[in-house]
Amino acid sequence: MRIILDVMGADKPVEEFVKGAVSAISEFGCEVTLVGNKAMIQEAITNNRLSTDHLYIVNAPEFITMEDSPMSVVKEKNNSSMHEGLKMLADGKGDAFVSAGNTGALLAGATFVVRRIRGLRAAIGTILPLAKPVLLVDSGANLTVTPENLEQFAKMGSIYMEKLHGINNPTVGLLNNGTEHSKGHELQRETFLRLSVSDSVNFVGNIEGKDIPFAKTDIIVTDGFTGNVVLKLTEGFGKFMIDQLTQLFSANLLGKSSYLMLKRNLKDFKKKFDASEYGGAPLLGISKPVIKAHGSSDAKAVKNAIKQAIYYVNTGIIVEIARQTSQISPKSKETEKQG
Amino acid sequence: MRIILDVMGADKPVEEFVKGAVSAISEFGCEVTLVGNKAMIQEAITNNRLSTDHLYIVNAPEFITMEDSPMSVVKEKNNSSMHEGLKMLADGKGDAFVSAGNTGALLAGATFVVRRIRGLRAAIGTILPLAKPVLLVDSGANLTVTPENLEQFAKMGSIYMEKLHGINNPTVGLLNNGTEHSKGHELQRETFLRLSVSDSVNFVGNIEGKDIPFAKTDIIVTDGFTGNVVLKLTEGFGKFMIDQLTQLFSANLLGKSSYLMLKRNLKDFKKKFDASEYGGAPLLGISKPVIKAHGSSDAKAVKNAIKQAIYYVNTGIIVEIARQTSQISPKSKETEKQG
Repeated sequence: MRIILDVMGADKPVEEFVKGAVSAISEFGCEVTLVGNKAMIQEAITNNRLSTDHLYIVNAPEFITMEDSPMSVVKEKNNSSMHEGLKMLADGKGDAFVSAGNTGALLAGATFVVRRIRGLRAAIGTILPLAKPVLLVDSGANLTVTPENLEQFAKMGSIYMEKLHGINNPTVGLLNNGTEHSKGHELQRETFLRLSVSDSVNFVGNIEGKDIPFAKTDIIVTDGFTGNVVLKLTEGFGKFMIDQLTQLFSANLLGKSSYLMLKRNLKDFKKKFDASEYGGAPLLGISKPVIKAHGSSDAKAVKNAIKQAIYYVNTGIIVEIARQTSQISPKSKETEKQG
Repeated sequence: MRIILDVMGADKPVEEFVKGAVSAISEFGCEVTLVGNKAMIQEAITNNRLSTDHLYIVNAPEFITMEDSPMSVVKEKNNSSMHEGLKMLADGKGDAFVSAGNTGALLAGATFVVRRIRGLRAAIGTILPLAKPVLLVDSGANLTVTPENLEQFAKMGSIYMEKLHGINNPTVGLLNNGTEHSKGHELQRETFLRLSVSDSVNFVGNIEGKDIPFAKTDIIVTDGFTGNVVLKLTEGFGKFMIDQLTQLFSANLLGKSSYLMLKRNLKDFKKKFDASEYGGAPLLGISKPVIKAHGSSDAKAVKNAIKQAIYYVNTGIIVEIARQTSQISPKSKETEKQG
């Protein structure tokens, strides 16, 4: 299997991506094509004396910054590492594309270069780092959605959790400002009705913010604006919890000696709430595997995003999404290019 | 000072409200009028052998349930404890009204019975239980808002944090899906521009979900839907953190002995994230003090909500809001009845 990895335009330097790729190759037995500034990639290899077995490099003169507009990837920056990588995926020069760059640009690029599955809106499905994995979809791709979109997100998320996390008949909750069906905007009320009569989704009803940390459902469906706030708030709380624990243990001598005693428990605890453990988030609804790694990914997170990409390919999720959603709306299974 | 307390329609029994009121009387030297089912109130007094000094009872034959529609308080249930209490406040038979009942009904009742400050939309301002107090406004009153509403919320929130929490020139952040001014819906982009040129608000820009736990700004401004999700998620994480800590310490013998050593630190830690410590949330923009206590308030939370009501009255926040907002939009300072 060959993974195409965008090494540019994220928070961390190229080095972290090259290191992550080399770890992934040795750990998972895949091939990786690095796309980006060739000189910087080679410098990272030399400086860190990394093995280049199964590692390939494609030079790209430009890259998308976090400030670039989403459409820049298909317009003025169509010679960027992100565009190049997506083009390679579309042309069959790799099995999956992984990028830690600008989310909006990745979504636009995936939509226009790789294309969506017919009839579907693409959404980002992110696993929240909680006591057990919970998929939040959409976690930031679409600020404005329709009830039909949310129903698709529920369906795609269910397939993902079943295929990739082995959860049988996973439960779906609609994020709302109360559990009653009358709660929320028109969007939530209509989506509630749609999901209630859906045969293909195990809908358990509205869920509230307070239910999220306790992983009440396997999948949480929401619009991309609320999803983005929830995802970042959850990540923030993970960091905050670790900070607070550290303070708790450094408060006095008793704390410090307890820390030594509890070191191992604490390590497990931190691992549980570490977003980088889950690697990347798939762009559900895109016709080929595109994985969004966290913007601040380090080598470990890059390696885990590649692992995620490999699983995503191996489980055949995309074929299953195309099959099942073509049953929902009786259209052709082939993919189409949509705006 | 006399506080009017609705003892009905919340999650906990009448007893908790009566106990909370009696504690408040002895601790803060106020008077409390309990509004609700007289027989149940008297039973709670007898069973718990409570002092009735400075305690008054007004019987109300009905109460608003959590399932009742917001308008029920002014329509079919206008003989409910909530309506009765609001009517007493409007008629000057008390200085503030506290209720732990149905939020939507309390907002509708406050708007129609007590009335809003001229030109303002009412919003709920809730203190998030974080390392330091952060005001979230609107935390659930208005699902749909305009940029003008959000500017008002920022202004009212600033006055509240200055007067009640003694924070000089408090900072305001607009909750968004990124820090750039181009982020968000039209609502966030327009609000960003409005707040950027506001003389009366110390606006620091967009803030993201990840900034919330670290209390990046003193005030967070958002619509009531997102605010409700954020508030409940924050409360959920508080509970979750305590649960996880308990697990951490019960994992093995080392954990248990550490727990004994750290008991005091942990107690402080729990207190910091306990929503009931902050009591209630004011309905900012209403022309008289109306405080929403948490639906699951126990006696301690009720007592703290009464404390909050006393502070709210004593600091003259409402007069200051009316004064400063009449400068923003040059209208009369008097109050009006609005729909």
